[in-house]
Amino acid sequence: MRENPEELAVADEGPRRRMGGRSARVLDAVANAVLEELGESGIEEFSIPRVAARAGVSSSSVYRRWPNKATLIAFAGDRMARETIPFPDLGSLRQDLLRVLQEVVETFRDPKSRALIAMAFSGSDSPDVQRAQTTYWQMRVQEQQPMFDRAIARGEISPDTDTGAIIERAAGPLYFRFFISRLAITQAFLEQLVDAALAPVLAQKPRRR
Amino acid sequence: MRENPEELAVADEGPRRRMGGRSARVLDAVANAVLEELGESGIEEFSIPRVAARAGVSSSSVYRRWPNKATLIAFAGDRMARETIPFPDLGSLRQDLLRVLQEVVETFRDPKSRALIAMAFSGSDSPDVQRAQTTYWQMRVQEQQPMFDRAIARGEISPDTDTGAIIERAAGPLYFRFFISRLAITQAFLEQLVDAALAPVLAQKPRRR
Repeated sequence: MRENPEELAVADEGPRRRMGGRSARVLDAVANAVLEELGESGIEEFSIPRVAARAGVSSSSVYRRWPNKATLIAFAGDRMARETIPFPDLGSLRQDLLRVLQEVVETFRDPKSRALIAMAFSGSDSPDVQRAQTTYWQMRVQEQQPMFDRAIARGEISPDTDTGAIIERAAGPLYFRFFISRLAITQAFLEQLVDAALAPVLAQKPRRR
Repeated sequence: MRENPEELAVADEGPRRRMGGRSARVLDAVANAVLEELGESGIEEFSIPRVAARAGVSSSSVYRRWPNKATLIAFAGDRMARETIPFPDLGSLRQDLLRVLQEVVETFRDPKSRALIAMAFSGSDSPDVQRAQTTYWQMRVQEQQPMFDRAIARGEISPDTDTGAIIERAAGPLYFRFFISRLAITQAFLEQLVDAALAPVLAQKPRRR
């Protein structure tokens, strides 16, 4: 696990650039600009120079850090997700996961998230889009790792648990219900989802008597 | 369960119209026209008269049977799904479900399915779209019921099993992986998915020793 979340965003971009005290504000401005640009232009017309103009930075500084659409969009999605989806520490994996799902539903209602998700589901075969999505997903799984590490420390799950699989089993049906079947997302539904997602991994653990 | 699958498509449209021997061909033509129109015009510009023209039927005959976009699109999605996704009878619910998931992945690669899914994930708040999706989903769950009925008859699952929940747990992560994380969909992944989806309901059954 990397300690500094910024490192994730630039993992493959070589050593991190120093951006001084403005760093966080500039990153926020770029992330917002990416999501706005995506919402307005879609992925096909997406323009890095326009993103730079929106964010009030030079194109070259954007290209230096994010050499292509894929890394730039993954960065923006991740930065938004990190701001809006919490990293809860409520004492049990079940409670933590439930809290994350509740917040994911909230992000579905946000136009910027919707622009990202619509991009994904437009089913674009562009390698840029595919790379952005997989990169984004891997960043998210890695960022949620501390939640699972605490569950391992508490003996709730085994250290070799496939945490990505748990997130897929919890998040998948949530996306499905929100976007495909459009059935109501109730608290009871979320709890059943978490229980079903955790059942296989909790079952691997020797039962306490 | 209704015996005749056509009945499903017109469930809320009053008594079924007789369409003579041309019936199936006309229904196919309409379904295809709907999916083409959706792919080309999207949901906002979707036009029932254009669908009728594409299908070579009168607008009034379309409106008579499907009074709005929602019922028409749900019908077309269902008709396509019924053609492309099989109703397997392989001797166990696990095998049947696995086969269905394999075919669902195939439909993801089909441009007409993609048009429907992109419509769903555009996140349209139009009541027409929402109604079309929920109607479609309910039709699909109902059509898969015989697969679950056989599993109940074999004693694999309890008669009060929530079959919609099983499908959500199996299909959700599949949609998620294909459209969101874009990770590889392997046979092993599909098998884990089916096992995880069935684990909670198989557990309800008293174990054989």
